[in-house]
Amino acid sequence: MEGICVLGISGSVGQSTVKVLRSFPNFFSLKAFSVHSNIKLAKDLIQEFSPLLVCITDEGARQILGDAFLSTKIVYGEEGLDEIVSLSEVRTVVTAIVGSIGARPTITAIKAKKKIAIANKETLVTFGPLINALVEEHGVSMVPVDSEHNALFQLLEKEERNNIRAITLTASGGSFRDLPLDEFKHVTVQQALKHPTWSMGPKITVDSAGLVNKGLEVIEAHFLFGFSYDQIEVVIHPESIAHGLIETKDGACFLYASHPDMIFPIAHSLFYPSKTPKLLLERKPFSWKELHFREPEAKRYPALALAYQAGRAGGTAPAIFNAANEVAVALFLEERIHFTEIPQVIDESLSKVENSFPNDLAGYLEKDREVRNFVLENFKKGVMR
Amino acid sequence: MEGICVLGISGSVGQSTVKVLRSFPNFFSLKAFSVHSNIKLAKDLIQEFSPLLVCITDEGARQILGDAFLSTKIVYGEEGLDEIVSLSEVRTVVTAIVGSIGARPTITAIKAKKKIAIANKETLVTFGPLINALVEEHGVSMVPVDSEHNALFQLLEKEERNNIRAITLTASGGSFRDLPLDEFKHVTVQQALKHPTWSMGPKITVDSAGLVNKGLEVIEAHFLFGFSYDQIEVVIHPESIAHGLIETKDGACFLYASHPDMIFPIAHSLFYPSKTPKLLLERKPFSWKELHFREPEAKRYPALALAYQAGRAGGTAPAIFNAANEVAVALFLEERIHFTEIPQVIDESLSKVENSFPNDLAGYLEKDREVRNFVLENFKKGVMR
Repeated sequence: MEGICVLGISGSVGQSTVKVLRSFPNFFSLKAFSVHSNIKLAKDLIQEFSPLLVCITDEGARQILGDAFLSTKIVYGEEGLDEIVSLSEVRTVVTAIVGSIGARPTITAIKAKKKIAIANKETLVTFGPLINALVEEHGVSMVPVDSEHNALFQLLEKEERNNIRAITLTASGGSFRDLPLDEFKHVTVQQALKHPTWSMGPKITVDSAGLVNKGLEVIEAHFLFGFSYDQIEVVIHPESIAHGLIETKDGACFLYASHPDMIFPIAHSLFYPSKTPKLLLERKPFSWKELHFREPEAKRYPALALAYQAGRAGGTAPAIFNAANEVAVALFLEERIHFTEIPQVIDESLSKVENSFPNDLAGYLEKDREVRNFVLENFKKGVMR
Repeated sequence: MEGICVLGISGSVGQSTVKVLRSFPNFFSLKAFSVHSNIKLAKDLIQEFSPLLVCITDEGARQILGDAFLSTKIVYGEEGLDEIVSLSEVRTVVTAIVGSIGARPTITAIKAKKKIAIANKETLVTFGPLINALVEEHGVSMVPVDSEHNALFQLLEKEERNNIRAITLTASGGSFRDLPLDEFKHVTVQQALKHPTWSMGPKITVDSAGLVNKGLEVIEAHFLFGFSYDQIEVVIHPESIAHGLIETKDGACFLYASHPDMIFPIAHSLFYPSKTPKLLLERKPFSWKELHFREPEAKRYPALALAYQAGRAGGTAPAIFNAANEVAVALFLEERIHFTEIPQVIDESLSKVENSFPNDLAGYLEKDREVRNFVLENFKKGVMR
């Protein structure tokens, strides 16, 4: 039995992780989890799994849960996150928490020598060089849970590095993949939240609509696998059946494909380095019917080029990209800026906020704050409208 | 420099092999080849490559080539084939010769400890158990050149055997994949010879139209990779971009994809166990546009089920399937039987010719002759019409 800790259990990856844990009760045991404010869910999961530790991160929800659990201790806030990932009974930490809040507990988990099933892409995007140095220093394995990176991880394990010409992330193309370009100015929050294939949280769904999410994933792939940005490609594949491709030197490709359900990469990352020992879902190849592939249009997805630009610049540029986007998406979800302003905010931030090359977490966090202030101040000044 | 011998250099696989050899003049040297009757081509290739040995297999063409070559010796017939595959300067033998005539030189090559790039599927289908025993005894590598098997070979190298649920061969569906079922009775030789994706010889093109070729490949896959027939599947994939798939225990798939050009599997089999060191063709994934997958219809392709039946019966049943088909296709190409009679001939042969389990080549060859006589006599008696 392997002890599991899930950071952010109420999100879509968290909930899929619970599904996988239920399918393999003889392999895994949920020893700890965190939840932001969904107390009802926390209670149900405590009943079902009797974890040793549960962390509530929302200040407002602190008092609601109470302490009336026999074998489960309740902890709070960022210190609580550090506590649950360090628990000695935990072997694998699933970082399914959304946003840059995931960085600190991820670092704590690495230092505690846990296996990291990384589902919090902001951590790698923002602090990539630091995280990679820590992973190497502490000799832990880090397995990506994102379906594209998990596919690439599995493909790359099987191929000699110097035989690889390029790696390709597939992208569903998001909610607006077929929208006429002149209608982009008028898209609503509701429209942006309708993802064609994946059911996910609001922030990532908006990120997908503009391929910002894919841009973050390109940077994530760079830090996870060490390929140069020239070797990382993106292809639009609306069916989300093929998740990742590697192209070998001769020009042939190896693909990883599965029904678009997060239980595949999650089960893989939990079982790694073993293999998932039983069928998760029966879907024969003929059930795919049609798979489409096309090049992403630069005009439809301006943020993708910005992500490559930030990735190539290195230093804190990816952190600037990510922080600017986080604030912009929040403003969009509050209907305070247009959808088309999200890439504009990112572009503006990348040109106006100075890039730097810090040696420690504090330097990156400082840049993160600087960008958030920059965007909010510009917004207040009305520069963005 | 690796010495190469090509059996059947004038066929489509033979010609693609020449293309690959031309692309890698610093890696390979054509030391020997056989040709049936295309003397013009033989002369040109002798000029270009100065091989040490050339074999002419057609009795009628014996005298035409002459001996006027400085460094190339000309040999003839089946003994000639044995001689060219045994040449000490040869390391890899490409068995691109069509039909069961390929068996004897393949066996000679195995005994001479050559690496076998096997493109003659009849050899494995008819003599599978014998060939496998010889390969093991002499410790040679046998790399399949058929695009589907080459894809599976590459995929299987990368996956733990006990993590594989099924292997799948893709099939273009052949010339009649979209033909209304009631029009099958009237199809002409000309129609059958129009393959939608691959340009190949007439026999294999007719075999593809009825999925007889895929049936042979299912049996070939069984002998190459050792999977049970329940684990070998076929999916119709008209674009011929994905060549093979393996399904892992969890229900996910790994695919091998390339532009449908035989230079990919040929280069792989020549370089194996090394990797093809440079780009063969530039085709980015978005150039695939659409890939379709569907289940083969039993009514459209009755021969496929017969191949599984023959494979499962074992012994000489695959040889019966193959020999009956070879004669039937020859009769069809001579416009002496209908296209729909090909599977009928195979079915009839499988039920009327007694299966046996010989211990030596002679037993299989005897069964092969028995089937050919059975089919031809039935044809003469008019039983087939």
